[in-house]
Amino acid sequence: MENGIPTLSQSYPMSGGDGPHSYTRNSSYQKAALESAKAKIKEAILEKLDLENPNPKPDLNVYKIADFGCSVGPNTFDVIQNVVEAIKLKHQREGTKGGNNHKRLELEFHVFFNDQPDNDFNTLFKTLPHHYHDHGVFSCAVPGSFYSRLFPRNSLHVGHTSYTLHWLSRAPEDVSNRNSPAWNKNSIQCTNLVEEVTDAYYQQFKKDIGAFLEARAQELVPGGLMIILGQCLPDDVPMIRTWKGVVTDMIGDCLVDMAKSGITSVEKAESFNLPIYFPYFSELKGVIEQNRCFSVEIMEEVKHPMEEMTLSIGFIVSKYRAIFHGVIEEHFGDGVMDELFDRFSRKLAQCPIDFKECQKDMQFFISLQRIVD
Amino acid sequence: MENGIPTLSQSYPMSGGDGPHSYTRNSSYQKAALESAKAKIKEAILEKLDLENPNPKPDLNVYKIADFGCSVGPNTFDVIQNVVEAIKLKHQREGTKGGNNHKRLELEFHVFFNDQPDNDFNTLFKTLPHHYHDHGVFSCAVPGSFYSRLFPRNSLHVGHTSYTLHWLSRAPEDVSNRNSPAWNKNSIQCTNLVEEVTDAYYQQFKKDIGAFLEARAQELVPGGLMIILGQCLPDDVPMIRTWKGVVTDMIGDCLVDMAKSGITSVEKAESFNLPIYFPYFSELKGVIEQNRCFSVEIMEEVKHPMEEMTLSIGFIVSKYRAIFHGVIEEHFGDGVMDELFDRFSRKLAQCPIDFKECQKDMQFFISLQRIVD
Repeated sequence: MENGIPTLSQSYPMSGGDGPHSYTRNSSYQKAALESAKAKIKEAILEKLDLENPNPKPDLNVYKIADFGCSVGPNTFDVIQNVVEAIKLKHQREGTKGGNNHKRLELEFHVFFNDQPDNDFNTLFKTLPHHYHDHGVFSCAVPGSFYSRLFPRNSLHVGHTSYTLHWLSRAPEDVSNRNSPAWNKNSIQCTNLVEEVTDAYYQQFKKDIGAFLEARAQELVPGGLMIILGQCLPDDVPMIRTWKGVVTDMIGDCLVDMAKSGITSVEKAESFNLPIYFPYFSELKGVIEQNRCFSVEIMEEVKHPMEEMTLSIGFIVSKYRAIFHGVIEEHFGDGVMDELFDRFSRKLAQCPIDFKECQKDMQFFISLQRIVD
Repeated sequence: MENGIPTLSQSYPMSGGDGPHSYTRNSSYQKAALESAKAKIKEAILEKLDLENPNPKPDLNVYKIADFGCSVGPNTFDVIQNVVEAIKLKHQREGTKGGNNHKRLELEFHVFFNDQPDNDFNTLFKTLPHHYHDHGVFSCAVPGSFYSRLFPRNSLHVGHTSYTLHWLSRAPEDVSNRNSPAWNKNSIQCTNLVEEVTDAYYQQFKKDIGAFLEARAQELVPGGLMIILGQCLPDDVPMIRTWKGVVTDMIGDCLVDMAKSGITSVEKAESFNLPIYFPYFSELKGVIEQNRCFSVEIMEEVKHPMEEMTLSIGFIVSKYRAIFHGVIEEHFGDGVMDELFDRFSRKLAQCPIDFKECQKDMQFFISLQRIVD
């Protein structure tokens, strides 16, 4: 059945269900990053969220929170829990000052889980935390691309997204075009080795982030907070020098090998480019600061707790299988995943990643506040 | 995986997906009923919905609509479309009076599709109408039993539910209890032939409707509308005299036959009772009028357009298979459906329903308005 939602972007959901290859069971790397950002999110809410202003009727004490690109649990539930607790804490603190009417009604939360329509929402719903209802937390799922509007105006007090904005709405056209100087012949990703390729990816990224912020600006109440976590590159580190860049190129090599063996076509392998771009930090900073609807409250590096660890082959294979599942099946069709990730696993064993040799990427934390017009 | 939502009620979703036995393809009877109520819904909104009062900030022009027990499309999409059009029309009319600020912002709609967490929301999302986004309609799914709270306070302007409230939160315990005077030995439904059985079902119905209205009273804004469509019985017509009662008893007979053949156990067949109750009209009226949060604006009979038709065996089998799928599999386990509905189909061929001989049930339309405290 055709996808009924007119999104501007293509959709590559994380692997659904709760089986061994599912995102649910293979998202601990993302979880570790979120843990390290928890305290920062709490702080941003405590310091910046205006309890009086954003709520049209503050005495109703209802707060609305969205996680954009939630995938399936459990990470998204932790994020929401953290935001809920921060708002409760802020209420408690401001309540003790006296003189306002916040204490009259129990706090209630409307929580929105957003992802593409082909995300596995059935699994998300079946794994919603038990305690939500007892704590006045009411959940919804919102299907659609976050590069377009998803909510009516002034719908949200806090928006959150983590490790999502490197997924472009689509790979730039030129990188798959044999006749373009930006043709990305030798890789399935932006390695940052070819200037024209990098620029094509960067232009798409700039356009997409612009669309994201424009949509969120309408959806957040004045004074509302938009929190963005993600991964970028230090200004002097090309993607191909990071272990993630190395690993992604290995997957690309496996696809080329499979084309040579006739398992897929050379044409398919050559025309495949990931719709993923990790910007340089200065690029990201520039794009964020250009927006006119949000003030940039915090924009800084955070440390990834697993940054210094050497990851096992099994861990890497599972993580990348869960993440790339959708985008690879969409291009190559069903039935290539087992073969591809078997090959990838063998290649990793033959040429182990030298984690110490690789350069580090960078994790960022951004807190934006919707400007009161 | 365990269902994470602590609902008070059991859950028996309509058949999911879009295959030959799906609710999507077997809900035309329900659709016909909705068609006949469309004009009434429009009228209720035009006459009763207060555009100034319910919206905390009317100049935002955002209206929130929920369909409780939406199942999968297409009926729920038609319902929402009808409500959206009615609100637009009302705005247009009131806009022409001048003197208000409704015209400053385009109308936007936040639409909430509610059903049990094991409803097939993935299919719902994939079939959302294309034109929603272009018309300022933003969709969410809300998993959970409508016999408990699903939204924060003051979240909705219009609530709608159709052909849902005969599904009780559970079958009354006594009807499956061999030692109770309300033991429903000879049927899988409330036939209205045994007073104790009828009373046990009625008590559960009263409790459930009470819980439904109490939850909605908190979720609807003051002045908001709750529209309820459904099926009940004229005061002098017991269920067993309607064709639906006859058909349901036939399905029960097939289950008993299957127990005799050893395909299922006698114990299972005897302990099975549908969590369904069609109240007498006077019972329904009494329960609705007892509530203290809503004024009863309209409560009347509507004609079902297919009422006079003789339905084909294929149509009846498909309709009941889609509706009873969840509740029967939950009790009898997987793999009984094909056998059961083959037998049912053969039984219908052997003893055709004499539609003219059967008495008519009754379709009702209720419009309630949330009282302004």
